[in-house]
Amino acid sequence: MQNETKKKLDYVLSVLKIQQIYSNACAVLSFDMETVCPPKGMSNQGETSAYLENESFKLSKDPKYIEAYEYLYNHLDELDEFDKVLVKGLHKSYVQTKNITPEMNLEWSKAFNQSWVNWLNAKEKDDFSIFAPSLSDVREINLKTISLNEERKPISYDNLLDMYETGMTGTDLDRYFNECKERLVPLLKKIMASPKKIRTDFLSRPVTDEQQKAMSEYLLNTIGFDFTRGALGTTEHPFTNGLAKDDIRVTTHYYPTAFLSSMYSVIHEGGHALFEMFQPDENYDHYINGKKTMGMHESTSRFYENRIGRSREFVHLIFPKCKEIFPNVFFDVTEEEFYEAINVVEPSFIRTEADEFTYTFHIIIRYELEKEIINNNAKIEDLPKMWNDKYEEYLGIRPSTYKEGILQDVHWSFGFGYFPTYALGNMYNAMYYNKMLEEIDAPGLVESGNIQKVNDWMTERVWKRADRLEPKDWIKEITGRDFTVKDFLDYLEEKYSKLYNL
Amino acid sequence: MQNETKKKLDYVLSVLKIQQIYSNACAVLSFDMETVCPPKGMSNQGETSAYLENESFKLSKDPKYIEAYEYLYNHLDELDEFDKVLVKGLHKSYVQTKNITPEMNLEWSKAFNQSWVNWLNAKEKDDFSIFAPSLSDVREINLKTISLNEERKPISYDNLLDMYETGMTGTDLDRYFNECKERLVPLLKKIMASPKKIRTDFLSRPVTDEQQKAMSEYLLNTIGFDFTRGALGTTEHPFTNGLAKDDIRVTTHYYPTAFLSSMYSVIHEGGHALFEMFQPDENYDHYINGKKTMGMHESTSRFYENRIGRSREFVHLIFPKCKEIFPNVFFDVTEEEFYEAINVVEPSFIRTEADEFTYTFHIIIRYELEKEIINNNAKIEDLPKMWNDKYEEYLGIRPSTYKEGILQDVHWSFGFGYFPTYALGNMYNAMYYNKMLEEIDAPGLVESGNIQKVNDWMTERVWKRADRLEPKDWIKEITGRDFTVKDFLDYLEEKYSKLYNL
Repeated sequence: MQNETKKKLDYVLSVLKIQQIYSNACAVLSFDMETVCPPKGMSNQGETSAYLENESFKLSKDPKYIEAYEYLYNHLDELDEFDKVLVKGLHKSYVQTKNITPEMNLEWSKAFNQSWVNWLNAKEKDDFSIFAPSLSDVREINLKTISLNEERKPISYDNLLDMYETGMTGTDLDRYFNECKERLVPLLKKIMASPKKIRTDFLSRPVTDEQQKAMSEYLLNTIGFDFTRGALGTTEHPFTNGLAKDDIRVTTHYYPTAFLSSMYSVIHEGGHALFEMFQPDENYDHYINGKKTMGMHESTSRFYENRIGRSREFVHLIFPKCKEIFPNVFFDVTEEEFYEAINVVEPSFIRTEADEFTYTFHIIIRYELEKEIINNNAKIEDLPKMWNDKYEEYLGIRPSTYKEGILQDVHWSFGFGYFPTYALGNMYNAMYYNKMLEEIDAPGLVESGNIQKVNDWMTERVWKRADRLEPKDWIKEITGRDFTVKDFLDYLEEKYSKLYNL
Repeated sequence: MQNETKKKLDYVLSVLKIQQIYSNACAVLSFDMETVCPPKGMSNQGETSAYLENESFKLSKDPKYIEAYEYLYNHLDELDEFDKVLVKGLHKSYVQTKNITPEMNLEWSKAFNQSWVNWLNAKEKDDFSIFAPSLSDVREINLKTISLNEERKPISYDNLLDMYETGMTGTDLDRYFNECKERLVPLLKKIMASPKKIRTDFLSRPVTDEQQKAMSEYLLNTIGFDFTRGALGTTEHPFTNGLAKDDIRVTTHYYPTAFLSSMYSVIHEGGHALFEMFQPDENYDHYINGKKTMGMHESTSRFYENRIGRSREFVHLIFPKCKEIFPNVFFDVTEEEFYEAINVVEPSFIRTEADEFTYTFHIIIRYELEKEIINNNAKIEDLPKMWNDKYEEYLGIRPSTYKEGILQDVHWSFGFGYFPTYALGNMYNAMYYNKMLEEIDAPGLVESGNIQKVNDWMTERVWKRADRLEPKDWIKEITGRDFTVKDFLDYLEEKYSKLYNL
């Protein structure tokens, strides 16, 4: 590396170090607002967060900093692999945000925070009108953000999608989701018509928070979550927050008569956490640990939740502990009954509580609405009805409250384009799980409690290069094949045909 | 107000507004480290906090800012009462800290954070040697801080005391504590010799965390804590943190066989919280809400804990709820037995668990050690023995572990001079409770659950002007009398002579 290049790189890293401090502080503030902050303290804390976020944003506008990474961008061949990824990312982000001023940025931060507070409030009161104006603001900010983005024109939903899943377009997704519909709609009809009766009565037996907490901790330990580098909290909407290299937190909620909800949300969020915990240290040293896409992330969380968590082998592994922690639930339940119950297919309103099979429909519905909102400027006040109509069309059920309808998810309080990543995650993990099966006996390892070996494979093959590759290249490198929906659909068809004796 | 004065004042307020943002962020980070942050995430988060704290400190070094409040300091007569307090405080703080550079400040912040982490670790492992080097560092920093302080010389323990309780000196405290010893030592002997048997067996009956949490919430509601502006968390060492005007948090701990510990720590911290919640809004608008001394604060927390919380009337009020929440504890206990049990006098090791009577000895011990540490440069390695010797001397008991000895309290991980404020708090509240009794029927109000009326008196008489007055003036304004230990000692003598039939 030339002396000049080294100097520029050092300068860039020194700015990133300070930005990371701000980002760490904002992550703590955000975690606190989600978990502890009292209602009337929210707006003050939102302002604190917006201020700090904007201090960091201002640093990104420092001409010396921009000049330095642009210089590096013109000397990429002198950089190592990690710094190349870093500098390309900085350049891309520069082109995307060069027209956004700190004033705009601060205003938007505050608007997003207000939007989130309104969403919480609207959901609690089951009143869409409280959230509607924010939804409109968020759309305006999203459109403004992409209109100022010099990287790609014309403005459309694709620009937002690209923020969460680089390289994916609406055209791609239309094709993938059509394939899903073609195969899953008739299959769902068959399942619903199946005479097979799956016992689920025990799933609503009452349990205490303390029992559920003990189970959550057991499950996290079982999949390999490191409690010296992470924590478990409670929130209405479970999430994972990687606050720092050695501080990865997951949350769950405890419902007194639905213990599966915390169990599987914990495994899901635990999957996200493992990705953060076991990525290469170099990602942090080179400030590229945020490069992995949400689809990659969801592929991991849904891998642990479904491919591991809802497998016969996992049930066999955890069943003795289930009986120990929830004796009042499992006293008359067999292992087979438990396996069937966690895989029962039943159209339902809440995405995060949906079974693995109908889950994809929840995403398709949101995807289609998002495109309407962004590309066709759908009227905000029409959205609740559009939402309900789609649930009726795809799943044959109609929400009767906003809470179980359009207000259920937090995502639209900060923007559009995220939801498809959940479905893509399922598709990615179906592909790489098939690859994993060629190389290690994953089901056997799970059954014997040796999930660490599965994590090792994930570390080496799935997580290691995620921050350095775009999704389509990444999945091809792991599996040797181009992206396809087929593995996922084949898996669902096989598993559920067997379960329902089709 | 002259135009120039107005301009200067606006500038000062604009800087304070930003400093308040940093201070809010640091308070959230600190609360998070106490309650959630995983062990390996601590040092990173400590660095984040130190960075932000130092950004704020740098603002206080801005020459334009200093010039502005010094200008105001020379034009005090143009300012209103609140701004006068603000400007005097800024001037004082300027004189105290003008020789401290941001580099020193950052280094010290990091050292305090490390010291706290080491204390946690040392306490957990019951190993004083882990904490000893930090204790030495903290002493050095304390001495350095006061040696750079141009306000008062020579350097001694008094300088530290003044940071927590303006106007109090070691000479004062020696006199007050000698009076205490003169009256309390013989009284303690009589109590210990009393044939009166107080039943305490039920205090160690096992309870769940959920029961204790329900009790904590009930108690906070009972004394008037506003949950829309506050929250309750759990930590090993209970505390109160006023993060913002509408965000006042208290913590407690749940011990499975010592439910009184959470009950009375919750009332204590709740008392601190009420002070923060019901101070005048103007304190926040004028950035003077940090002016109240720790002695004033402890007077309030210990007022609720002891004068209200351990009174017959309060026991009468809460006893039905105690039986409802802890049926497994109270099934064979009478109201009178409960009253006696919460007031039993018994020399013990842990300050925060001590009864109201022996509590003062815990403070005297720490006070005498602090003076040795600062004024006589006591050897750090000798402190555990010195601590134990004093417990033997005053209370006739000798700690057998560091945890129940010198490592029990967090305070010395950030400095010396705080402990006396607890004792002063008892003395202040004894004086103002006597005044209160002249004006309202506090016991009757408590017994009938009308604690809000007591809070109203506290708001108007005790809390309202606390940020605007120095302690000695404040207590004189409330009571019409000069500070005295007599009220407190009379109260103890009367209450405990009666309880022990002396």
